[in-house]
Amino acid sequence: MPYQPPRGTRDLLPADMIKRQFIVDTARAVFERCGFDPLETPGFEEYELLSAKAGEAIKQEIYYFKDKSDRELGLRFDFTVPAARVVASNPDLPKPFRRYQIGPVWRYDRPGAGRYREFWQADIDIFGAASADADADAEVVACACEVIKKIGLSNFTVRINNRKLINSVLNALGAKAVDVMRIIDKLDKIGEDGVREEMNNKGIPDVEKILKLVGIRNVEDISVSDEEGKAGKEEVIQLLSRLKVFGCSAEFDMSLVRGLEYYTGNVFEIFQEGGLTITAGGRYDNMVEQFGGKPTPAVGISLGVDRLTNLVQMDLGKTKVNIFVANVKDSNKEKCIQLAGQLRDLGVNVEYDVSGRQLSKQLDYVNAKGIKFLLVVGEKEEKSGVVKLRNMVSGTEREIELRNLNRITGMID
Amino acid sequence: MPYQPPRGTRDLLPADMIKRQFIVDTARAVFERCGFDPLETPGFEEYELLSAKAGEAIKQEIYYFKDKSDRELGLRFDFTVPAARVVASNPDLPKPFRRYQIGPVWRYDRPGAGRYREFWQADIDIFGAASADADADAEVVACACEVIKKIGLSNFTVRINNRKLINSVLNALGAKAVDVMRIIDKLDKIGEDGVREEMNNKGIPDVEKILKLVGIRNVEDISVSDEEGKAGKEEVIQLLSRLKVFGCSAEFDMSLVRGLEYYTGNVFEIFQEGGLTITAGGRYDNMVEQFGGKPTPAVGISLGVDRLTNLVQMDLGKTKVNIFVANVKDSNKEKCIQLAGQLRDLGVNVEYDVSGRQLSKQLDYVNAKGIKFLLVVGEKEEKSGVVKLRNMVSGTEREIELRNLNRITGMID
Repeated sequence: MPYQPPRGTRDLLPADMIKRQFIVDTARAVFERCGFDPLETPGFEEYELLSAKAGEAIKQEIYYFKDKSDRELGLRFDFTVPAARVVASNPDLPKPFRRYQIGPVWRYDRPGAGRYREFWQADIDIFGAASADADADAEVVACACEVIKKIGLSNFTVRINNRKLINSVLNALGAKAVDVMRIIDKLDKIGEDGVREEMNNKGIPDVEKILKLVGIRNVEDISVSDEEGKAGKEEVIQLLSRLKVFGCSAEFDMSLVRGLEYYTGNVFEIFQEGGLTITAGGRYDNMVEQFGGKPTPAVGISLGVDRLTNLVQMDLGKTKVNIFVANVKDSNKEKCIQLAGQLRDLGVNVEYDVSGRQLSKQLDYVNAKGIKFLLVVGEKEEKSGVVKLRNMVSGTEREIELRNLNRITGMID
Repeated sequence: MPYQPPRGTRDLLPADMIKRQFIVDTARAVFERCGFDPLETPGFEEYELLSAKAGEAIKQEIYYFKDKSDRELGLRFDFTVPAARVVASNPDLPKPFRRYQIGPVWRYDRPGAGRYREFWQADIDIFGAASADADADAEVVACACEVIKKIGLSNFTVRINNRKLINSVLNALGAKAVDVMRIIDKLDKIGEDGVREEMNNKGIPDVEKILKLVGIRNVEDISVSDEEGKAGKEEVIQLLSRLKVFGCSAEFDMSLVRGLEYYTGNVFEIFQEGGLTITAGGRYDNMVEQFGGKPTPAVGISLGVDRLTNLVQMDLGKTKVNIFVANVKDSNKEKCIQLAGQLRDLGVNVEYDVSGRQLSKQLDYVNAKGIKFLLVVGEKEEKSGVVKLRNMVSGTEREIELRNLNRITGMID
């Protein structure tokens, strides 16, 4: 029995990897157009750093290990913590520091449909821009929306809430915000009745008032009584207003609480129709300081690359190879290599036979692999200087003179 | 004291990451043009798999850990072992299976100048093409050379040897090939005298003959007495001949032994002038079978992304941002956002102020970050519909009508 990838992880064979690359390339291009620069951090961090901000649930999911000097390490579980560490330890970075990072993160979670222990995230964050006017908040949300549109998805919704607002209204009811949020976070899973039961069991006061509050979808309907609440409400209003300038439709949703405990202001999620969260983020103004850096406000958003990959509807093919150059006889091989070299110089992805196979076996391979175009080189082609380009899908053929080989780039789209 | 990256690892801030991306993007583009498809495997593997083929030296360097189900795992130390596992466990992949993989690998090695515990590799391998005619061997070597050329390097040398040949001639002298190779591998470090001494200490026979052999640079000068030796010699001759078709200059070097014990035929390294190995690989025909798959010949090569990154001479800048759109007053912000959106739609990387700063502070930031172009939007520009594009390096300015904004793409190269 051959070895398999470790439980909860997977290999991406070319067909799947081509899809993921489409997501990653799209995200990267949009991030850069939106003024974010690339940052890279290691795959593992000091365990103490990771566990400091993880919150209990995620802390249980960290892959922990010691190196051979007994240094306690853990695989990164997100990109926010490492980025905040970078900002804390590089105080001279020009602010705002706008960075993106795309790659794998690891959590020892129960694997399930579309849930992996190694999964990819694509993150943007802005460090050093306070929440005034919610400009930075709007920028990261709008940029995430742009990625999702470019991927070809349209049925998605941006939902917004605010931690200050949540804290304020729950405190006013005499409830402990963190306890209530943990239960409300399960609303999608256990429904309103389930939430009611859990809150009652937990002894939370005014459960019916809380449930009514959670149903509010117009931020103006929330009445706030303290400074924290007013600030939170104002941040939501500003963010909604800024997003309109971007042509980005978003709605307030008082039921949206985000699991991560480090958020301090606006929080946001983008849902695909059907309820799947594909993007989430928020403002976390305290983290850099808690990691030993100067006080630095921060806001960011994270796209779930695996979920987005699964939603891609386009047929992107099973291979990146455009043309296979087949040889009729072994004696035509050198010509094939030369021709392949010329085509590659033109920017075409080209393969030729490296296994000494007969022509019929080469053609079987072209079909099995799903390569769209075929060129056959035999004695006749070598003599005439004319080759035929065969479209393996439509079966059509076109002749090309080797001295005008550059014309081929227009024929293989 | 803020947290740092774990010892032996590092962060890549934008200036460095932009360089690495140039290497990675170049490698990926060349790999795809040469007919390789992307494959992705997890960051960690079963420890048993990793340790099976690691060889003692690398085995000591594996980051080992257990997950919460006491599964024994290790961070990958290369891409060859995971790729061979994929081929072993997916017997129906069309052959030859040509894949590339680019990303981080981890080894608990002594960190030093340019040596990290997390480092990036860019690998290509061909599975399922036997060594006949050395076609596949030549393909991976030529493709690696093409990457190096595209990066802008020219003073590099391809050196070739062959494990069968080494085994054959050393066996004929009555020496244990693996012991001798381990010592010869240190030639660059300890010199000929050091090698002589170690071999004598180890009781290896015919040390002077071995040293003379190791000095041979013309494969025809090696006399072989058995089938293994003849096959190895022929493989070298074929590879050198094939590489000529690619216009790729290579030389035989009997002193080249590669540390990894899994090689079975041709081995190759590419040295940058000065002796730094930037690329290495070889043929390993037994690994897939040893991992439980069908017998599958294999050959591959690995580029050291970090070393290549350090060799890049080009100035690639500190930021990907092309243009900063500054606002004179807060009331111009909406126009800035609209303008940024239009420019981004044109494919330009654009940033604007999200911190509510005064114009002078915005300009300080543009200079600190190294953004090359500036657009200023004030009342005058909003009214006239004409903005000035300022080149922050040369100090020159050009006027652009907002209704002809698309002309800007030709002005920012």
